[in-house]
Amino acid sequence: MSTFHAIIPAGGAGTRLWPLSRRSRPKFLLDLEGTGRTLIQQTWDRMLPLTSAENIHVVSGAAHGSAIAEQLPELVNLLLEPSPRDSMPAIGLAAAIIERADPDAVVGSFAADHRIPDPERFAEAVREAITVAEQGYVVTIGISPTEPSTAFGYIESADPLAGFASARAVRTFVEKPDEQTARDYLASGDFVWNAGMFVARASVLLDSLARFQPELAAGLRAIAATWGKPTFVAELGRSWPSLAKIAIDHAVAEPLAAEGGMAVVPATFGWDDLGDFASIAPLGSSPDVLWVDADGVARGEEGVQIAVLGLRNVAVVQTPDAVLVLDLAQSQRVKEIVGRLPELERDDLL
Amino acid sequence: MSTFHAIIPAGGAGTRLWPLSRRSRPKFLLDLEGTGRTLIQQTWDRMLPLTSAENIHVVSGAAHGSAIAEQLPELVNLLLEPSPRDSMPAIGLAAAIIERADPDAVVGSFAADHRIPDPERFAEAVREAITVAEQGYVVTIGISPTEPSTAFGYIESADPLAGFASARAVRTFVEKPDEQTARDYLASGDFVWNAGMFVARASVLLDSLARFQPELAAGLRAIAATWGKPTFVAELGRSWPSLAKIAIDHAVAEPLAAEGGMAVVPATFGWDDLGDFASIAPLGSSPDVLWVDADGVARGEEGVQIAVLGLRNVAVVQTPDAVLVLDLAQSQRVKEIVGRLPELERDDLL
Repeated sequence: MSTFHAIIPAGGAGTRLWPLSRRSRPKFLLDLEGTGRTLIQQTWDRMLPLTSAENIHVVSGAAHGSAIAEQLPELVNLLLEPSPRDSMPAIGLAAAIIERADPDAVVGSFAADHRIPDPERFAEAVREAITVAEQGYVVTIGISPTEPSTAFGYIESADPLAGFASARAVRTFVEKPDEQTARDYLASGDFVWNAGMFVARASVLLDSLARFQPELAAGLRAIAATWGKPTFVAELGRSWPSLAKIAIDHAVAEPLAAEGGMAVVPATFGWDDLGDFASIAPLGSSPDVLWVDADGVARGEEGVQIAVLGLRNVAVVQTPDAVLVLDLAQSQRVKEIVGRLPELERDDLL
Repeated sequence: MSTFHAIIPAGGAGTRLWPLSRRSRPKFLLDLEGTGRTLIQQTWDRMLPLTSAENIHVVSGAAHGSAIAEQLPELVNLLLEPSPRDSMPAIGLAAAIIERADPDAVVGSFAADHRIPDPERFAEAVREAITVAEQGYVVTIGISPTEPSTAFGYIESADPLAGFASARAVRTFVEKPDEQTARDYLASGDFVWNAGMFVARASVLLDSLARFQPELAAGLRAIAATWGKPTFVAELGRSWPSLAKIAIDHAVAEPLAAEGGMAVVPATFGWDDLGDFASIAPLGSSPDVLWVDADGVARGEEGVQIAVLGLRNVAVVQTPDAVLVLDLAQSQRVKEIVGRLPELERDDLL
């Protein structure tokens, strides 16, 4: 069986969770569940049953290097991007470095800021995806939709792949749909949510990329060739800014699906991208919040008493320098608040 | 013309303004309008056109002595009650002390925590009340009602008093009415709000009290007899706890009205007792609050960014140790929140 390497792209500010999340303290660094483990630490914990610590690779922005190293003391492979260039360069660089050491290695990429309450069933799905990837497919793990969400892209599956428990061929990747389309997808039973989980042999991923985005693949492989050498940082700084800024979905998954090269393992484990306060609400509030004819979610500093009177389905978020109060049904609009901070000369709160 | 003395009873925690107001920092010590002057300072400012600083008397609880002295550096006469015994002992003791020096002096009592935006018209009403008081009446200044409020007691006026611009005899004082009764009062035009403003000769006030509550009047005059002597504090501590705990309305105003001894000057100046956050709302929010499809009132510390999204008619109140969010229509219920703090072992927030 091939060696499995986990790639954890740790990016995204999580603007819709402001003021909990900030540029300097993005969502993946937060302990949103109050378990004592942050989201990236929980992601790390989910990988350990699948591979060893030295085969886990975190790719993030330079600004977060020290916070990540502090939260993940056993992390060996930390790749720091000079600037954000979307998911394909991030995942692709890690894959290219792994490929040089072991072209047959299977790599899997998993976001650093998602919540998966059942790590056992997650591991089962990844293990099936690895066996499918060993047959040459790029495999995505799709999430069985629980509602007609318009917040996620969808994956349409085709026929089952012979010889596997649940894997199916992918017909197509579709962007975030409108509400009616989402309802149709849910009703059809053939669509799963795209959670950005991709599993493939390192060489398969990069060879596919080389066909669809030859310059990007060549650039990534050129940088990877200097990994472990004194010239690496200089080469990264020189080449990185010219790489195409593109998501792995567009760069590989969509065109490869059209050729029949993509597979999907439908996952039944619970999953949440914790994208806004409505998704945080089920995780509960800080201790000792007082609700009087009121409900919702409230998060605050220890020692700060939060009280809510006569308001339903609200979020109250207290931090030392900002307080946000919102109707949970409008959680997606928090980015409008963040967008207006500069005009108040409060860039310090971003 | 008689000498006029102002008595300012400074009491009441202002529980419905929690967490802005606390036991240790009651409403009268707060600058709710953001003008740089607290409510008791503004009350002081309103008195100065009517009398001199040495004729202004503040009566408050012992716990607030130093804060009041700090806020009113020109204050000479500060009476500190050993324990709260309602308004009649507080006002009566100050009146008894004034009476000993000058029985013909006219005293006027005015709460320390009300808002009167037009001090000129307030002074005019007090001046008329003084001339009526010189004829032997106990005079109240009644507020022309602007709505059928159920939060205030009402005063029913009878015939105009000959020789005065607007003063009328008082028929009766009535407690806080129900909503239908309040509407009837408003429609009749004969009712004004009882704002607890009383003006009378010191001797008339105490002689009236001596008829209705002889023990209380005697007790107050006995304490006053020691004013300025070394025995005052001991006498106050000995006698005060046995004095009747009673409001001036019940002790004097109601029974005297029944005898025809009360007069009312209907006031046309704006007045607000700032009793809850709904009454604070028109005063405006802290600077730079962000409202996105939202409105209401928000108060917070300087430097703390408050943002509200998708909620109408709400109050958001941030302090260093507590955050309160409420539907402004339920402002009167804030005391329920305060009532539940002990069960959370947060007596420190009272």
